[in-house]
Amino acid sequence: MQALWLQNQQLTYKNDIPTPDPLFGEAQVRVRLAGICATDLGLVKGYYPYNGILGHEFVGDIVFAPNAPDKIGERVVGEINVPCGTCHFCKTGLTNHCKRRTVLGILNRSGAFAEYLCLPLKNLHPVPATVSDDLAVFTEPLAAALQIQEQRSIHPTDRVLIVGAGRLGQLIAQTLILTGCQLQVVARYQKQRELLATRQIPWVYEQAVSEKFFDLVIEATGTSSGFAMARQAVRPQGTIILKSTYKGETTVNLSSLVTEEINVIGSRCGPFAPALRLLERGLIDPALLIEEKFPLEKGLQAFERAGQPGALKVLLQMT
Amino acid sequence: MQALWLQNQQLTYKNDIPTPDPLFGEAQVRVRLAGICATDLGLVKGYYPYNGILGHEFVGDIVFAPNAPDKIGERVVGEINVPCGTCHFCKTGLTNHCKRRTVLGILNRSGAFAEYLCLPLKNLHPVPATVSDDLAVFTEPLAAALQIQEQRSIHPTDRVLIVGAGRLGQLIAQTLILTGCQLQVVARYQKQRELLATRQIPWVYEQAVSEKFFDLVIEATGTSSGFAMARQAVRPQGTIILKSTYKGETTVNLSSLVTEEINVIGSRCGPFAPALRLLERGLIDPALLIEEKFPLEKGLQAFERAGQPGALKVLLQMT
Repeated sequence: MQALWLQNQQLTYKNDIPTPDPLFGEAQVRVRLAGICATDLGLVKGYYPYNGILGHEFVGDIVFAPNAPDKIGERVVGEINVPCGTCHFCKTGLTNHCKRRTVLGILNRSGAFAEYLCLPLKNLHPVPATVSDDLAVFTEPLAAALQIQEQRSIHPTDRVLIVGAGRLGQLIAQTLILTGCQLQVVARYQKQRELLATRQIPWVYEQAVSEKFFDLVIEATGTSSGFAMARQAVRPQGTIILKSTYKGETTVNLSSLVTEEINVIGSRCGPFAPALRLLERGLIDPALLIEEKFPLEKGLQAFERAGQPGALKVLLQMT
Repeated sequence: MQALWLQNQQLTYKNDIPTPDPLFGEAQVRVRLAGICATDLGLVKGYYPYNGILGHEFVGDIVFAPNAPDKIGERVVGEINVPCGTCHFCKTGLTNHCKRRTVLGILNRSGAFAEYLCLPLKNLHPVPATVSDDLAVFTEPLAAALQIQEQRSIHPTDRVLIVGAGRLGQLIAQTLILTGCQLQVVARYQKQRELLATRQIPWVYEQAVSEKFFDLVIEATGTSSGFAMARQAVRPQGTIILKSTYKGETTVNLSSLVTEEINVIGSRCGPFAPALRLLERGLIDPALLIEEKFPLEKGLQAFERAGQPGALKVLLQMT
């Protein structure tokens, strides 16, 4: 089959990759559409060691399911973590943190930038008929945005800042504006500001961010300068949620976290069911964020486009 | 009056310091007993710029209170932050974080290593008659220990680790053991282990701490190695509470906080009323922690003693 293959930080398009076979309890999915995210760009840069097929945001159809033939033909999206199910973390509900887990296109499991992928049936969620492929392909990052509200209640009176208005920052903004909170988004590019404006989401210039003002700051840039801005903007006893991964180590003044009693929370994957509900209800419109679609064989061009500053969501289409 | 005076990181004993006069709403307190803590040692090392009389843990008697003469003779302990009362932080309940605050013996307010100090009447709490001076002098650090439970509920089933069994670590251990949680304390010195044993608090060697095991880790050493140990010990989605201040900046892998969804919370001053209630009920026994008492004129010796590795609480007595 065709796939984008990463080997020693070298990404290549191949058309001779063996089609993956489903293990017990798994289904084989024919991918329709897949999205490139910052993690994929980071993997190509070597932030984490991974060799294999990249990609973890997708929508596709179940084409083979040895243990559940009635599922064939279902249009699905999929949770990316495949836990062992038997370790202490799995048994205490921390399945997404299972030490033996595989992760689609990230850790020991062939990913979604390919014609076919395999995932356990329990990872797959049927997509409501009214949710188009262009929307459904955003389910995974939208779920990650919702993880914020799994970890920390947003009060309608909260002053909330999102640092970064890229792919993930925009999705987070669309979820948080629904809470009624007093939201501002730091947006560097004109296109980002226009997108926020279409959803009536207030944006702010970097240099105009109020200091020690926000109850909650979401850091969605994954840069040390983004963290520094979050640190300046949060009020004493406020919360910073880290929503992106960072290259290497960051220098942090821990004493200032103590004296101002700041709460820093790391945040990763989130729940798919509410993400699909919000898409079905039309309360989130991620299709606005589509920058460009490329066929899989033009995957390298797609990655180049996705890596450009200010680029929004680049999709790969398997036709 | 006599006092310990810090000027340009030089601590001296003086007997010609003017007695401070209470402002409107303040009381003048004659200090009985005062405690030396890590913050005092840090101020002498120049971690924060402060010139003046050191000291913020004390018990004493109100001797002069222009607006409340009925209070004269009350034996009291005192909250150390004096907020402006009018700024945004003060009006939203963040009085301990008021930008214009003074802090006893730490920021623009003469401290407790002196015969007399002044604090607003509203900062002072009468000490129950059954609570001795040797216990009451621990009210401030005990309140700081209780701040942990103001910020994060401790479940009786939680696995909790305290890194550090010095002055503050011991007090925190005495408060957390009351919750019924599964508690372990990393104790470096034999004396610390014996103290913990007298309260039936389990201790553990540094090299025997379980990895990714604890729901909650309290970092009470204020060292980067203590933070590294806390980071190793906490489970995914677990919480690290930073209870000490750190010298300079620390290198932190923010990405690992994100992927493991760790919560890091800075924690500072706490509530006095529950600290006094626990002392009155005999549920906490900080007097075990008294290393040695020195008269104020031997203050420099007292500081030397307090700075020795493994030293517990050194007190200054004003006679």
